[in-house]
Amino acid sequence: MPNPVLVEVTRGKIVESRHRGAVAVVDADGATALAFGDVGVPVFPRSAIKALQALVLVESGAADRFGFGAEELALACASHGGEPGHVAGVERMLRAAKLDPSSLVCGAHWPLHQPSAHALARAGGTASALHNNCSGKHAGFLCAACAMGVEPQGYAEPDHAVQRAVKAALEDLSGAALADQNRGIDGCSVPTWAMPLASLARAFARFASGNGLGPKRAAVAQRLREACAAKPWFVAGTGRFCSEIMGHFGARVFVKTGAEGVFCGALPELGLGIAIKCDDGQGRAAEATMAAVIERLLPLADQDRSFVERYVRPQLRNWRGTVVGEVRAVLRPTASIGRS
Amino acid sequence: MPNPVLVEVTRGKIVESRHRGAVAVVDADGATALAFGDVGVPVFPRSAIKALQALVLVESGAADRFGFGAEELALACASHGGEPGHVAGVERMLRAAKLDPSSLVCGAHWPLHQPSAHALARAGGTASALHNNCSGKHAGFLCAACAMGVEPQGYAEPDHAVQRAVKAALEDLSGAALADQNRGIDGCSVPTWAMPLASLARAFARFASGNGLGPKRAAVAQRLREACAAKPWFVAGTGRFCSEIMGHFGARVFVKTGAEGVFCGALPELGLGIAIKCDDGQGRAAEATMAAVIERLLPLADQDRSFVERYVRPQLRNWRGTVVGEVRAVLRPTASIGRS
Repeated sequence: MPNPVLVEVTRGKIVESRHRGAVAVVDADGATALAFGDVGVPVFPRSAIKALQALVLVESGAADRFGFGAEELALACASHGGEPGHVAGVERMLRAAKLDPSSLVCGAHWPLHQPSAHALARAGGTASALHNNCSGKHAGFLCAACAMGVEPQGYAEPDHAVQRAVKAALEDLSGAALADQNRGIDGCSVPTWAMPLASLARAFARFASGNGLGPKRAAVAQRLREACAAKPWFVAGTGRFCSEIMGHFGARVFVKTGAEGVFCGALPELGLGIAIKCDDGQGRAAEATMAAVIERLLPLADQDRSFVERYVRPQLRNWRGTVVGEVRAVLRPTASIGRS
Repeated sequence: MPNPVLVEVTRGKIVESRHRGAVAVVDADGATALAFGDVGVPVFPRSAIKALQALVLVESGAADRFGFGAEELALACASHGGEPGHVAGVERMLRAAKLDPSSLVCGAHWPLHQPSAHALARAGGTASALHNNCSGKHAGFLCAACAMGVEPQGYAEPDHAVQRAVKAALEDLSGAALADQNRGIDGCSVPTWAMPLASLARAFARFASGNGLGPKRAAVAQRLREACAAKPWFVAGTGRFCSEIMGHFGARVFVKTGAEGVFCGALPELGLGIAIKCDDGQGRAAEATMAAVIERLLPLADQDRSFVERYVRPQLRNWRGTVVGEVRAVLRPTASIGRS
């Protein structure tokens, strides 16, 4: 059975487009708080698990050795917009480890933040690996390699010590065995392992609560959550969903987008992890769905509700600024609700 | 019943994302040559019908009065990339009618062609209505208003003479009545009317063949098709699907993309019109599906087949250029095949 429609996009009085997908919200033991669609099919988590990949940066001792604060840790968890402050932060991380941008294998692209891209062009600059939205994560991997005393080169390969440590952490948090046949290559060239959406949500429940983790790992998870809550702009950038949501809710909500319609999140006070996959890979649908899940599960004051509602039903404006329709999360339940 | 999966997107050995949608291929009488999914639900055709909107530019006498050749007519049918040649062509159209860019109500955006956007920024320029991908269509509307002897101002309003003429042409070609409750506002502020996909395909069958049209309108349709076949770069731009496909096939294939996963096309030698709507609005899926429809229906030489195959199953590369997966049209038939 196809996954349910999670989001509708309207124009005038008509639903113009629809997004199907699946949602898993579970606790650290894997008990289901909310589920839509098939949460058992393996999905690539992509950039939505950068905060879990960043565990290795702290656990390797690199974060302390290089004196990284909340900004650097948030950048390691980030899909940033390539704004000047993001780029400067990544440069700082590399310098701390006596590395330079040529060590980054994420590939070059122009800043995703359009005004920063245009400013870069105006200044005669061009796209570099530092502008790649994943450069903070890559800098974190490089720093981890240095702290682990292994050769940084090849840090993106599946058999490198850093990626093996990342894989072990993902298996510990998710409870899922990550098989070679479920491994793909991410947009930034590191391995990405597909896992069931329910397992992905469980990983974030453990990240949110520390439940089911050893005390050291639980403390590192908390340190990363606190860094993102303290410096949300470094996790995404100006006007972006992840930064806006964490900027509003602080440590109450952790959210992180990934390519191809993936979104992960954590609600620490409820001990819940969230994983969303929009079947067709569209971020707008995963974003509205994440907002709807937050609205549905988190106790909200009136101003919280009106804030989050803007993301549950964002207006669509055309190039002249006229409202032409809206994106609206519908979250229709299916028979799969309540399944664990 | 949901529409079938038209396109799968893979990463490694896994299908990462899926796109559902509907396809209608019909002749000028509305007889079905190929159908997938529900072709009876009204969909907004968006920019995919610019060539039909451009009928009014020629029929009003404007194209002859202002001496427009293939480039200007192709621009009127275009969603262009805002490359310098596109912008210069639109400026030429406006100058011919003694108008300037301030008459355009499409709204400003940066060139969709990224190198042109960066070059514009480097030169100290900024986004303008001329760079808007719809500026050629808008210039055409303005020129039509001048030739019709009506006030150009307000040309984007549903009750303006130009838009009423457009609506009448759309109803003539599609055979569908365009109701007010099915009217939305397009991204560039002109009216867009939702109609069944089968009706949209029929409009393009008539546009392709002239069958079912009066002789004058049939000749204008042919003139527009020939202009796009002669100057395909003006319909989209460097490296873009519409320009590449028409550049290869010339007058044998007309294709035009629209926002939210719509694609229309015409195969004149078969007298067929094509209309595709990807449910979730993603262009990559509509594009691969269009390529698959062409591959399936058009008699192809070996070099045509290998050319079009690149669009039926385009490779996905990451930022470093590594092949990480593919987009592949699957066009699985459903029970709706053969329905008219």
